[in-house]
Amino acid sequence: MKQRPLILVTNDDGMTAPGLRALVESVKGIGEIIVVAPDTPQSGKGHAITINEPLRMHQVNVFDNVMAYECSGTPVDCVKLAKNVLLKNRTPDICLSGINHGSNASINIIYSGTLSAAMEASLEGIDSIGFSLLDYSFSADFGPCQPFVKDIVEHVLANKLTDTKLLNVNIPVGMIKGIKICRQAEARWVEEFQQGEDPRGEKYYWLTGRFENLDGGQDADVVALEQGYISVVPSMHDLTHYSAIDSLQSLAQISLKSVPEV
Amino acid sequence: MKQRPLILVTNDDGMTAPGLRALVESVKGIGEIIVVAPDTPQSGKGHAITINEPLRMHQVNVFDNVMAYECSGTPVDCVKLAKNVLLKNRTPDICLSGINHGSNASINIIYSGTLSAAMEASLEGIDSIGFSLLDYSFSADFGPCQPFVKDIVEHVLANKLTDTKLLNVNIPVGMIKGIKICRQAEARWVEEFQQGEDPRGEKYYWLTGRFENLDGGQDADVVALEQGYISVVPSMHDLTHYSAIDSLQSLAQISLKSVPEV
Repeated sequence: MKQRPLILVTNDDGMTAPGLRALVESVKGIGEIIVVAPDTPQSGKGHAITINEPLRMHQVNVFDNVMAYECSGTPVDCVKLAKNVLLKNRTPDICLSGINHGSNASINIIYSGTLSAAMEASLEGIDSIGFSLLDYSFSADFGPCQPFVKDIVEHVLANKLTDTKLLNVNIPVGMIKGIKICRQAEARWVEEFQQGEDPRGEKYYWLTGRFENLDGGQDADVVALEQGYISVVPSMHDLTHYSAIDSLQSLAQISLKSVPEV
Repeated sequence: MKQRPLILVTNDDGMTAPGLRALVESVKGIGEIIVVAPDTPQSGKGHAITINEPLRMHQVNVFDNVMAYECSGTPVDCVKLAKNVLLKNRTPDICLSGINHGSNASINIIYSGTLSAAMEASLEGIDSIGFSLLDYSFSADFGPCQPFVKDIVEHVLANKLTDTKLLNVNIPVGMIKGIKICRQAEARWVEEFQQGEDPRGEKYYWLTGRFENLDGGQDADVVALEQGYISVVPSMHDLTHYSAIDSLQSLAQISLKSVPEV
């Protein structure tokens, strides 16, 4: 009898987030699930890892018939603990992260704990998908996107990811027209800090901002989402700006100045 | 009279780290410096930002004749505070982050607070450089690399970065042979968790690991560093795996299954 696929599930909104529960429910029929998720919300934690202090991990009973462990660290810590402590002798067939409450399209990928957790698993050679719904509210309705999540996971399990090991999947709210394979849109956050005084009269700064898309390309994820499509961006951990290598060669020459003569 | 360039300096090891002082000293003659650095060590914080709580920021007097502000957040928070609060009406000519105590070559870039701070500035269109010395110790000797840091910053200020806005500069210990423009090496961390019991008998997990280079390419940063060269990797925030887009088109077809028929 063929073993059911092993599905590692994590997120950045924490163990009790409705998006995590929606993800677990979406794929429950597909395979054996193990959930390793942060014990506190970890939005915006990017690829942070915990190195200066120890981590805690406890098994918790929050899903019916699904093993779940909560961890004191970041989303990436969760994946590292899953791989190195809980699943020492088994490699997951797939790692799913999310469903995030809010967009991780475009530049959001670099700030996202959801996608960083998936990237961490992809670094270990595991096919990995970060799912995000374009609704930041805690009470977001994940129902309409669950069939798509299931379809995408089944497709990836059946076909495996080849050229890439990491998919950034964002799901629009409302009527879904289909799926588009996209590139990361060029966009930015226009930010400001809300400034105030705390109850003791000390000044504080609280980050706030709005997302600004700079990219009109039909192959950009933000554009596909605006048109009602689920965007899938194959992603990677190589940050080299290859086309800039040639134009920097003059910088290599300045070494002659500081190198001690022999 | 031409205004001196404005140099924003940050790091991830915190305001009191010797590497930050070494960086400030390296470029002190070149321009006007403003330091905005974390008030605690923030190694491994990647591109984390603080969204669920307010930040604190205070001017501190730790460098002679250099404005310095310490911030309660992450390295990326520091850059955001610098841009949006301290330098609302002036754009730095360059942002320098480091000098990190330890390598940020290869895959380390995604975990690195040092490089993430520089990337954050690059997102704002600012020429940005992350500097790292391949010595993790607090008492690392930054002296030998300071002339190179100065040369590189002067070169970038004079020539500007064009195709890329972000350089990941790693500096070997010992005799420096020169500078090589490189790509990010393919490498991984082989990790385990040190497990133990705390003084109250509760179990803990503490991340440990060793870096494993998988890349023999002469243009890989890790290889250049092993050969005694400073590695400079032009880097970017677009994580799209472009060459994988075509092979994923079959995934776009599954949408037909879940889309409600009209």
